[in-house]
Amino acid sequence: MSTLAIHILHGPNLNLLGTREPETYGHQTLADLDHDLHTLAATLDVRLTTLQSNHEGALVDAIQACRDQVHGIVINPGAYTHTSIAIRDALLAVRVPAIEVHLSNVHMREPFRHHSTIADVVVGRVMGFGPVSYDLGLRGLVAHLRRS
Amino acid sequence: MSTLAIHILHGPNLNLLGTREPETYGHQTLADLDHDLHTLAATLDVRLTTLQSNHEGALVDAIQACRDQVHGIVINPGAYTHTSIAIRDALLAVRVPAIEVHLSNVHMREPFRHHSTIADVVVGRVMGFGPVSYDLGLRGLVAHLRRS
Amino acid sequence: MSTLAIHILHGPNLNLLGTREPETYGHQTLADLDHDLHTLAATLDVRLTTLQSNHEGALVDAIQACRDQVHGIVINPGAYTHTSIAIRDALLAVRVPAIEVHLSNVHMREPFRHHSTIADVVVGRVMGFGPVSYDLGLRGLVAHLRRS
Amino acid sequence: MSTLAIHILHGPNLNLLGTREPETYGHQTLADLDHDLHTLAATLDVRLTTLQSNHEGALVDAIQACRDQVHGIVINPGAYTHTSIAIRDALLAVRVPAIEVHLSNVHMREPFRHHSTIADVVVGRVMGFGPVSYDLGLRGLVAHLRRS
Amino acid sequence: MSTLAIHILHGPNLNLLGTREPETYGHQTLADLDHDLHTLAATLDVRLTTLQSNHEGALVDAIQACRDQVHGIVINPGAYTHTSIAIRDALLAVRVPAIEVHLSNVHMREPFRHHSTIADVVVGRVMGFGPVSYDLGLRGLVAHLRRS
Amino acid sequence: MSTLAIHILHGPNLNLLGTREPETYGHQTLADLDHDLHTLAATLDVRLTTLQSNHEGALVDAIQACRDQVHGIVINPGAYTHTSIAIRDALLAVRVPAIEVHLSNVHMREPFRHHSTIADVVVGRVMGFGPVSYDLGLRGLVAHLRRS
Amino acid sequence: MSTLAIHILHGPNLNLLGTREPETYGHQTLADLDHDLHTLAATLDVRLTTLQSNHEGALVDAIQACRDQVHGIVINPGAYTHTSIAIRDALLAVRVPAIEVHLSNVHMREPFRHHSTIADVVVGRVMGFGPVSYDLGLRGLVAHLRRS
Amino acid sequence: MSTLAIHILHGPNLNLLGTREPETYGHQTLADLDHDLHTLAATLDVRLTTLQSNHEGALVDAIQACRDQVHGIVINPGAYTHTSIAIRDALLAVRVPAIEVHLSNVHMREPFRHHSTIADVVVGRVMGFGPVSYDLGLRGLVAHLRRS
Amino acid sequence: MSTLAIHILHGPNLNLLGTREPETYGHQTLADLDHDLHTLAATLDVRLTTLQSNHEGALVDAIQACRDQVHGIVINPGAYTHTSIAIRDALLAVRVPAIEVHLSNVHMREPFRHHSTIADVVVGRVMGFGPVSYDLGLRGLVAHLRRS
Amino acid sequence: MSTLAIHILHGPNLNLLGTREPETYGHQTLADLDHDLHTLAATLDVRLTTLQSNHEGALVDAIQACRDQVHGIVINPGAYTHTSIAIRDALLAVRVPAIEVHLSNVHMREPFRHHSTIADVVVGRVMGFGPVSYDLGLRGLVAHLRRS
Amino acid sequence: MSTLAIHILHGPNLNLLGTREPETYGHQTLADLDHDLHTLAATLDVRLTTLQSNHEGALVDAIQACRDQVHGIVINPGAYTHTSIAIRDALLAVRVPAIEVHLSNVHMREPFRHHSTIADVVVGRVMGFGPVSYDLGLRGLVAHLRRS
Amino acid sequence: MSTLAIHILHGPNLNLLGTREPETYGHQTLADLDHDLHTLAATLDVRLTTLQSNHEGALVDAIQACRDQVHGIVINPGAYTHTSIAIRDALLAVRVPAIEVHLSNVHMREPFRHHSTIADVVVGRVMGFGPVSYDLGLRGLVAHLRRS
Repeated sequence: MSTLAIHILHGPNLNLLGTREPETYGHQTLADLDHDLHTLAATLDVRLTTLQSNHEGALVDAIQACRDQVHGIVINPGAYTHTSIAIRDALLAVRVPAIEVHLSNVHMREPFRHHSTIADVVVGRVMGFGPVSYDLGLRGLVAHLRRS
Repeated sequence: MSTLAIHILHGPNLNLLGTREPETYGHQTLADLDHDLHTLAATLDVRLTTLQSNHEGALVDAIQACRDQVHGIVINPGAYTHTSIAIRDALLAVRVPAIEVHLSNVHMREPFRHHSTIADVVVGRVMGFGPVSYDLGLRGLVAHLRRS
Repeated sequence: MSTLAIHILHGPNLNLLGTREPETYGHQTLADLDHDLHTLAATLDVRLTTLQSNHEGALVDAIQACRDQVHGIVINPGAYTHTSIAIRDALLAVRVPAIEVHLSNVHMREPFRHHSTIADVVVGRVMGFGPVSYDLGLRGLVAHLRRS
Repeated sequence: MSTLAIHILHGPNLNLLGTREPETYGHQTLADLDHDLHTLAATLDVRLTTLQSNHEGALVDAIQACRDQVHGIVINPGAYTHTSIAIRDALLAVRVPAIEVHLSNVHMREPFRHHSTIADVVVGRVMGFGPVSYDLGLRGLVAHLRRS
Repeated sequence: MSTLAIHILHGPNLNLLGTREPETYGHQTLADLDHDLHTLAATLDVRLTTLQSNHEGALVDAIQACRDQVHGIVINPGAYTHTSIAIRDALLAVRVPAIEVHLSNVHMREPFRHHSTIADVVVGRVMGFGPVSYDLGLRGLVAHLRRS
Repeated sequence: MSTLAIHILHGPNLNLLGTREPETYGHQTLADLDHDLHTLAATLDVRLTTLQSNHEGALVDAIQACRDQVHGIVINPGAYTHTSIAIRDALLAVRVPAIEVHLSNVHMREPFRHHSTIADVVVGRVMGFGPVSYDLGLRGLVAHLRRS
Repeated sequence: MSTLAIHILHGPNLNLLGTREPETYGHQTLADLDHDLHTLAATLDVRLTTLQSNHEGALVDAIQACRDQVHGIVINPGAYTHTSIAIRDALLAVRVPAIEVHLSNVHMREPFRHHSTIADVVVGRVMGFGPVSYDLGLRGLVAHLRRS
Repeated sequence: MSTLAIHILHGPNLNLLGTREPETYGHQTLADLDHDLHTLAATLDVRLTTLQSNHEGALVDAIQACRDQVHGIVINPGAYTHTSIAIRDALLAVRVPAIEVHLSNVHMREPFRHHSTIADVVVGRVMGFGPVSYDLGLRGLVAHLRRS
Repeated sequence: MSTLAIHILHGPNLNLLGTREPETYGHQTLADLDHDLHTLAATLDVRLTTLQSNHEGALVDAIQACRDQVHGIVINPGAYTHTSIAIRDALLAVRVPAIEVHLSNVHMREPFRHHSTIADVVVGRVMGFGPVSYDLGLRGLVAHLRRS
Repeated sequence: MSTLAIHILHGPNLNLLGTREPETYGHQTLADLDHDLHTLAATLDVRLTTLQSNHEGALVDAIQACRDQVHGIVINPGAYTHTSIAIRDALLAVRVPAIEVHLSNVHMREPFRHHSTIADVVVGRVMGFGPVSYDLGLRGLVAHLRRS
Repeated sequence: MSTLAIHILHGPNLNLLGTREPETYGHQTLADLDHDLHTLAATLDVRLTTLQSNHEGALVDAIQACRDQVHGIVINPGAYTHTSIAIRDALLAVRVPAIEVHLSNVHMREPFRHHSTIADVVVGRVMGFGPVSYDLGLRGLVAHLRRS
Repeated sequence: MSTLAIHILHGPNLNLLGTREPETYGHQTLADLDHDLHTLAATLDVRLTTLQSNHEGALVDAIQACRDQVHGIVINPGAYTHTSIAIRDALLAVRVPAIEVHLSNVHMREPFRHHSTIADVVVGRVMGFGPVSYDLGLRGLVAHLRRS
């Protein structure tokens, strides 16, 4: 069983994690979250890289860069979940299996957050578990990749 | 850390798992799936019970019976995901934390499968990983319960 | 003035009355409510029977059984109010005058609770008075039947 | 148990009651109806006042005048049920508990009559019983006020 | 040409046939209808079985039981035509060719009756001929099965 | 052939006719228009009365006052055309044949002007001819009344 | 004051006038109606031509032929009122003032009859007066042409 | 039992049957289909006439010509099913009982094919059986006519 | 720079300001607010008049009376913001520049308050600043009038 | 490289080109346009035929006649672009590659012109270039055919 | 009364102010506008900073940088007003009071400009006054901050 | 005839051309495409510049830079076609004639790709011809510019 390379992508405003709306998103910072994911990755024989950006174009660039470089993507597109077709197209173009994760259960929030432009081009979706959503998304992606 | 009691609920047609539309749902039977979940539960110090029914009323009865008896519910309401307000009301009434899971990524299927009547009354949602969706849902529920 | 036979039908989750979401539904149990209705019925020269079920089909069976057996029906279809055309068809089929009652004012709740599949096939509707809704519904039904 | 002061408000065209569309509204005049309500009020220890107007502004004025003067309002806003936000705002502003009543079951009529601008700001709603709707609305309001 | 096994499924309230809304559904009872279908079946070298239920779950169970047992299904889902995704899923799961029939022309009735959850998963549809709809549906199914 | 009594009703802002938006409504004043209508009425053996009001309630009062007093109504409800159910109900209540007229062709203006709350309760509609719309509406009403 | 040339266009199924749905359209035939219009035209110093066709393309041809040949058009497009953009385009192309007439008040009929593809490209509209609609439409068109 | 006269109407593009999209419509030509229908008609004591046209107006003409000439119509309006109100009006005007048939199950195709402008003015509908749809439609029409 | 005449119009229920829903609208009364506006007007060389009414018709009358009498209008139509086309028409008719103001940010409230019938016929809009909204609206109107 | 046969189809009202709404469509006549296309065709080794009709059925006939006769179609369906499913079906049936062209940019015009019934069954679309749209469409079709 | 720090944010294309669509936006450049705002700020004891960007991500970055650095934000998100949830989320995350301003009255323009993704997360909104909108927005923000 | 300067703009993910979804977009790379366009430009006396970016803001910047620098723009906004109002505003602001091109026929793809935010602000549109779409767009733009 070979090592898997997986890229974690955090969308806009996730850099504020732990300080922004803690009643919704908790107190853990993005660095904390990435640290925990690296720990988990080690146990799953996964080589992890991560990126956060507030720029839609930068996220598109990052997804494009994944082509032939990683085995899978875990992405939380933040607000771009609901508006970006460019990110959807990038995922379609690079053809790297991706998992969509959200910290909160988006269905408990404003109606415009219920729609995701990438929902039907990702392998699976996990939401509502706070930072654990990433943990589960990573586990699910690894299971998917090892099985294929 | 005390043992947790968790009830797994399978909705209509899931008894056909492994034989029904294998291109969508895979070849594992419901018994196989439940067996794997019991194995995982043992490692998480969880006492598991499971039920499958094709009857909406029977699922409502089963959720009601959870009150004060289990710490959490993992539910795949199958087709009732999209039509049953009675199941939603039962979940609201018993106030037991619940996780919604689906084998397939419902957003890749017919539009009427994109809506869930319980999406905003469950803690979290997992979909698209096949039987692994249950695995992740159970892990996520345990993390949620241990943290609360 | 002859005695009237009236059947009271309670839909899904109403068996939890008094324990479920008391801030919405109050603390009176279904047994309490039925007891009060029998007391009122006695003063109105009405012979009362009652049934509660979580099963849509059982409610359909019960409505069918009313044909030629009772003079009227008071029904709170609970969650099936919003989804069941089978209950609507049963009411149309047996042609027994019916009153729709709800404990809460459904218009203060989620939008999907604003629609009732039976609203236009019942004689009248009463909602928002808690258990008193049944009291008023029974009085209104009796007035309707005595007048006809 | 002290006497309650309750104001009955009749909206546009209800002054024609008994002559207008008798197949929908019956032959009882508004004076007859008010007389019956006074009789009932006496048995409930209620002091009743009534008003009818075809003018939306006059109904708003009348609701405003209720503040600190009556314990509750029974209102049949007639056609303004479906169009008046000013009446809704007046009810919100004076904070006097109100009951919405309709002679006919509005759900048997044109679709635009199914929507009420005040449905979610009143305590309860009664419809479809003809003049008896007022009777039940008054009883329900008294029960609500005595209980509070 | 071998004998075909075909199952006829009648949904909710069809047990009232001949007594319910005869101006819409005629005076023939369900027993009469089944008798006529058996007579026709004999001429077509078909072995017929029939079932009626008011319970959505029971209809799902019945469809599941058809797998590998019959060559085709003629189904009138009654009110569940418009609301049941569970029945649709059962038909998809068992992969037995099915025909949807209705006594009345549903397009002459309420708008919510114009939509069928199974319309696009059945082979063909017949409606508006009263009991003859079943006759035509059975003939059409036999033609379909003999041709395949 | 007896004399007919007909009431002409002008809705809000029509008192400004001739000064308001002349590019849409022309330069003739309401007094001019009424004068021309009286001249036409004389040739048709019609006794004419007219009223203009900016108040919805006043228009409702005026329609109610027509009962048993006039043979027909020609009404241009102005802005209330699009919002008033009270005026519709008044027309339904008094059961006097009415004609709806508009100076402009409302379909050339904002979409919200395309809908009329009274369109389906009047005998006929005339629009787009400027003041001549009233002339034609009056002729059409007389033809309708003489024919009945 | 010079003589005006006006073309009357009758759309599909109007050739059946007097025999088709007389409860909606009356007993007068199309020949009767055209005769009456010619009589009226004579009094208005109008030279009238008429055409009826069931073919959308033929009506387009006829409108095109009006260019520079007539001063105005009175058109009842029948069923094509609701579906034909080709007729609308022809009216726009020839730039001959047109009046839209309907025998019945289309707002009392099926919702799809409430929309007209030509409503905003004609000078005026008249409906609901039976054959008198044409009479009024012709008078209104003449008034419009004489005024311009 | 007297002979029945029935007219079969085929809409646009059906003349290409057997060559057009055979994966959807099969390889039988329109001549083959008409031949089989004549054979069936003979066994049912029916005198059959048939017509195909790509022109909406020609189909309207043909329906009008049926008045007082045939006892019933079997019509497959092809693409005009979804757009023609003129055909609907012709069917309403001639008042000859009609059956709507389609070769394919329109609900398996584009959404705009799910709507039929004539669905609620025909006696019954049959779809999805290929050429057998006509066979069943003819049988159903005969049963309907013999029963009336 | 000459003195400007400006009329302030307050719609329904604004007479209750300071007592109605103070958590939304604050404790300042309408008299306080008007007093502050007069103070500001003096510093801007503006002659101010004010009116409040609960009657839509009275507001229409008041706007009509502004013609040729004032240079501008500041209007808070209250609940009529969302329903009155008559007020919109009056503003269009008098052609006096107007500013729309609201105490609260209407977008934080019920969806039906997000729409304003006058939004596109006023010069500018100010909302959400409590009584300061009027202050800003008056300043903006003066700037607009002095600039023109 | 062999000669290609291509058919140009012009829909309703295009015969008026050069005279109809020149501000939208320019002053070139249809004959001019066809002449220019023949000139271009000669340079591209294309044998061109052209047809214009105001009749939907005639356009369907013309498309059907293309089968096995031409290599491609350039079609401007005019008003039928937005309403004709029969033309769409004909294009699907004959399976000849087609290009959709429009003189104007339909997105600058009424909303109902934004939808085309054939948009998803043609190879490509060109609009907004006036007569040059045909030039580009022809070049694009030739490129497509030469490449296949 | 201490000095307030306020950040002015200009969205995409506002750098073209004074040159772009002057009939809509006037001739004042962005530098002029910022200069005037600094002048006003001085009189209000406000320290002003300003930024313009065409990049959604840059605006998100800028809003994030406001946290704990300024007391308030005046933002004109330009085209991102209608599409950016990322800007909304940034405003929610930093919890700095913000005012939304627009040069034009967006309700006079295309319908898609009527919706703002930030309307319900800002304190107040000002639009339609040209550059004066910023002046009023700044005044309103200062009043809000001084009052809190 | 002077030389024209034209700028070609490629939106997000077009840098992947030739590698991304070749079944939809073909195997030609963006460099190949630009090379072919330069070759064509030379024959048309056009000086060409090109740019590709994944960043919406960068595309806005690039369009702004075109002002007074080029005579026309050919733009394929990729995914931003469907979401970017900022790009639309930039095109409106610089007032340089633009052509919208797409490689694929967007109407054969997901419904959200059918809408373009710039469709009504460009001169013309070309889609579905693969790289030839740019060829045709450039030719059409040159024809438009030379003609103006």
